[in-house]
Amino acid sequence: MASQWKMTYFPVKGLGESIRFLLAYLDKEYEDHRFNVEDWPSIKPTTPWGQTPVLEANGQTVTQSIAITRYLGRQAGLCGADAWEDMRIDEIVYVINDLRAELAKYHYEKDEKRKEEVKGTVLSTTAPFYLSRLDAHVKANNGYLANGKLSWADLYFAAISDYLSFMYGSDITAGYPNLTELREKVLALPKIKEWVSKRPVTNV
Amino acid sequence: MASQWKMTYFPVKGLGESIRFLLAYLDKEYEDHRFNVEDWPSIKPTTPWGQTPVLEANGQTVTQSIAITRYLGRQAGLCGADAWEDMRIDEIVYVINDLRAELAKYHYEKDEKRKEEVKGTVLSTTAPFYLSRLDAHVKANNGYLANGKLSWADLYFAAISDYLSFMYGSDITAGYPNLTELREKVLALPKIKEWVSKRPVTNV
Repeated sequence: MASQWKMTYFPVKGLGESIRFLLAYLDKEYEDHRFNVEDWPSIKPTTPWGQTPVLEANGQTVTQSIAITRYLGRQAGLCGADAWEDMRIDEIVYVINDLRAELAKYHYEKDEKRKEEVKGTVLSTTAPFYLSRLDAHVKANNGYLANGKLSWADLYFAAISDYLSFMYGSDITAGYPNLTELREKVLALPKIKEWVSKRPVTNV
Repeated sequence: MASQWKMTYFPVKGLGESIRFLLAYLDKEYEDHRFNVEDWPSIKPTTPWGQTPVLEANGQTVTQSIAITRYLGRQAGLCGADAWEDMRIDEIVYVINDLRAELAKYHYEKDEKRKEEVKGTVLSTTAPFYLSRLDAHVKANNGYLANGKLSWADLYFAAISDYLSFMYGSDITAGYPNLTELREKVLALPKIKEWVSKRPVTNV
C-alpha cells in the first residue's frame, strides 16, 4: 500500500541503522528492504542521487541518512528544547560523521601500500583524538552527547558504532568508559533493545 | 565585549562563507577573524574538535559549518514550514556537501599520478552527475533547491559555489542555467549583495 513506509539499503547496518533505530523508537511500521550487493549497479541509477539509504514515505522519496535521522528524531521528541540545542545536537553528529569519514578513508583504500600508511595515522592519531575528546565530552554532558540529555545524536552514535568498529578493526568504545556506557544506555532503551534482538544479523 | 559574536576561520571563503552569508542576511554584527595559514598549527589544538570554522556566540563555542548555517537559517526564517520541509532542505545541502567532498578528494590529492587518475572520474563523471541532477532539481523546484522557495540551502549553495569552482578548476555553474540563475538570485539579495561587495577579496 502507498502509505506503507519503505527503506531501501544494503543488507548491512552501515549508514542505514540510525534510521532503523529511530523507526524502531517511534514504533513505526515500515518495509526494511535490503537488496543484494550484486543488484546495486541496477538499483543505483533509480535512486535520486545515486546513493542509499532511500526512504519512501508520505508519497515522497528522501535520501541522506543524517537528514532522515534528524527528521525522525524530531518526530520522536529527541531534539533540542530550542534551535540552539538543535545546533549542538547537529554539531556532535557531524563530529562523529567526520570520524566515520576518516575511518572510511582508511578502510576503503584500495592501494595496499597507501592503506598501510593511512592506517598508522588514522588508528594511532585521528581515531584516538576523536574518541578521547568524545569520551570527555560525554562525561562533561551528563552522560549524553548533547545538552545533557538523551537526543537523536545518542541513537545515531549507538546505531553507527558497529560500523565504526568494523572499519576501525575493533570495538571503538573499548577504553572509553563514557562512550561504552552511553552506547549501553541507548541499547537498553526498550524499543531499541527489541529491534536489536530481532534485526537481521550482519557483520557490518 | 563578551556578547560580541566572533567567527574564526582561514582567510578564505571555503567552508566559512555560508556562515558569513547568513550573518550578513541577519544583519548580525560579528568579528570576522581570519587567521594566517601559518598560524593554524598553533590554533588547531585550541579548537573543540581540531577544526574551523569556529563560532563564539552566546558565551559558547560552536563548530561545524553546516550545523551553524542551519541554526542561522532558522533564525532568519529561511527554514521549512515544517519538519518535513526542513528535511528536504537538509537533504539537498548534504547532496551539495557530497559533491564538495568528491571535489576535495581530487583537489587535495598529493600523489600527482593518483590525482590524474581521480581527475578523470571526478571531472568527467562525478561532478557532471551531481551538477546535471542539481540543475534539473532546481528547475523542477520553482528555481530553488528545496520546497519551491528560498531557503538557507540556496544561500549555502551560493556561498560555497566559489570554493567548489576553485576545486573544480572552472565555474561549476557554467552550462547549468538553473544553477547559474539560482546563484545570481541569491547574490542579488540586498544584504548578500552588500556583503559580497565589501568582503575581503580572496581566490578561494
